[in-house]
Amino acid sequence: MERKVVLSGMRPTGKLHLGHLVGVLENWVKLQKEHNCFFLIADYHALTTNVDTSDIYENSIEMLIDWLASGVDPEISPVFRQSQVKEHTELHLIFSMLITVSRLERNPTLKEQIRDLQLDNITYGHLGYPVLQAADILLYKGELVPVGEDQLPHVEITRDIAKRFNQVYAPVFPEPEPLLTEFARLPGLDGKRMSKSLGNTILISDPPDEIKKKMKKAFTDPQKIYKGDPGRPDICLVFTYHKKFNPDEVPEIRKGCESGQLGCVECKSRCAEKIIEFLKPIHEKRNYLEAHKDEVKKILLSGEERAREVARKTMDDVHQAMKLG
Amino acid sequence: MERKVVLSGMRPTGKLHLGHLVGVLENWVKLQKEHNCFFLIADYHALTTNVDTSDIYENSIEMLIDWLASGVDPEISPVFRQSQVKEHTELHLIFSMLITVSRLERNPTLKEQIRDLQLDNITYGHLGYPVLQAADILLYKGELVPVGEDQLPHVEITRDIAKRFNQVYAPVFPEPEPLLTEFARLPGLDGKRMSKSLGNTILISDPPDEIKKKMKKAFTDPQKIYKGDPGRPDICLVFTYHKKFNPDEVPEIRKGCESGQLGCVECKSRCAEKIIEFLKPIHEKRNYLEAHKDEVKKILLSGEERAREVARKTMDDVHQAMKLG
Repeated sequence: MERKVVLSGMRPTGKLHLGHLVGVLENWVKLQKEHNCFFLIADYHALTTNVDTSDIYENSIEMLIDWLASGVDPEISPVFRQSQVKEHTELHLIFSMLITVSRLERNPTLKEQIRDLQLDNITYGHLGYPVLQAADILLYKGELVPVGEDQLPHVEITRDIAKRFNQVYAPVFPEPEPLLTEFARLPGLDGKRMSKSLGNTILISDPPDEIKKKMKKAFTDPQKIYKGDPGRPDICLVFTYHKKFNPDEVPEIRKGCESGQLGCVECKSRCAEKIIEFLKPIHEKRNYLEAHKDEVKKILLSGEERAREVARKTMDDVHQAMKLG
Repeated sequence: MERKVVLSGMRPTGKLHLGHLVGVLENWVKLQKEHNCFFLIADYHALTTNVDTSDIYENSIEMLIDWLASGVDPEISPVFRQSQVKEHTELHLIFSMLITVSRLERNPTLKEQIRDLQLDNITYGHLGYPVLQAADILLYKGELVPVGEDQLPHVEITRDIAKRFNQVYAPVFPEPEPLLTEFARLPGLDGKRMSKSLGNTILISDPPDEIKKKMKKAFTDPQKIYKGDPGRPDICLVFTYHKKFNPDEVPEIRKGCESGQLGCVECKSRCAEKIIEFLKPIHEKRNYLEAHKDEVKKILLSGEERAREVARKTMDDVHQAMKLG
């Protein structure tokens, strides 16, 4: 298969959780074998919903440590912060002239955010974040964008902008395709979407004791109260964890739960052990990186240098196409 | 008087006319003696109303030649294109997070433009052009912005953004003051506002014959048809030109017009001669620059280098204040 340019990124939220690992990072690690990936720390995007930047640098480093520990290879895929490659903002401004306000107002994700965050007065930058995303992708001439179903409208905006630029000026940009990804969704310890703000996460960096403690509090089938009660594994989040971290024992766990022979306490404890085992190599790498933050920072700076080089070439094409001199 | 930082600019519309000379350039030449001026060729701003950039470079050079010929001294005041100092776009993006969409929608100038240009669907960049203006001004820590009454709302937006940044992060920016300027308005040859799109201009670069030809077609008092008819100089645009380019003879011209002794043909011809005389030193400089475009381009590149140096220092302050690392 032909290697294509893939652009993906995350906002710097600090330490990541197992949901990120299973949902995104494992996919990145797979993608970087097949494609030329660029992995972006979207620190400017973070400003759309929170202008407080006091922790943004530390959060970026912590997140990067999780990326690297989970197998992102910075030798293959440049890792970099948006804020350190000025060309993102340059392309963003140019693109801002190629899309209408009403097109952005129709963005369903924005509408949802406005509802969920109860924003009655969004900022100009918040309205325009899909324009910044388009710049993020097209600055590297991204051809594939791994997204879930709900993010398809964003890729559509990026394609519109690429088309419009190519038509008005010259064919500089590919029209990136969404790489529809079935994101494995790992539920939080309460069964809801795993999210820091809901306090239901296991962090990639959680030490074994913490994982055991957290697992003890995980929700299970409410009808299974005592050992002996038969349980329904398919509605139990712990069973979902087993399927991911303990696939070999899944038939046995199912049988034990359904028959009532396996109690929740033991089931959780066995699950915790498997998660700990799964995370062991990641923790080893993590511990090394935590102890050698200078190396992490060097990796970041070198990723930014490489990103900048590609970005500058694209902007040369853009300036030439626009005859800006 | 203390020298302050002044930021002013124009969109690159190509060759300028006498309205620009009298309304803006003469003011700039005066300002650069009193203050530290930065003069901006706003090529990105031009995109808000027209995305066609095919002539933008040539138009920028032609406009710059008019600036220089009219007395803008690039040794004192850097002249530069917005598109060549990436930091404009960087600060623009950061500022976009500090102002709401509804604040921008209330901008009276935008409302006027939407009405006049019959735009039912403005671009995102068009809505945000006051944010780009704020970046233009604050990137150089501008303290004074020469504006007409109608542009006061823009300076207000810039002040709001500066205030907000200083409050959220750290006190990096001055809150620029408008330098309310009574722009001498030179009417066009039909008495309306002088404007290329109305075809009623005398260009700074027009050769003497062209000026004479154009002046012959200038509108005058419609009640004065024949020599001998008494005229009303105060409603005659030619008289306005005399006041500007021929001040010594104004009392005599008034008397001649009102008495009817001075016919319009002669009055216009005398006025044309004075304009030609006024423009003579400007034309000499212009001819030299037209013949040495390489020097003009060098001036521009050096202005851009100087602007970039100041811009980078400001962005260092910005990044530090935001702790972006």
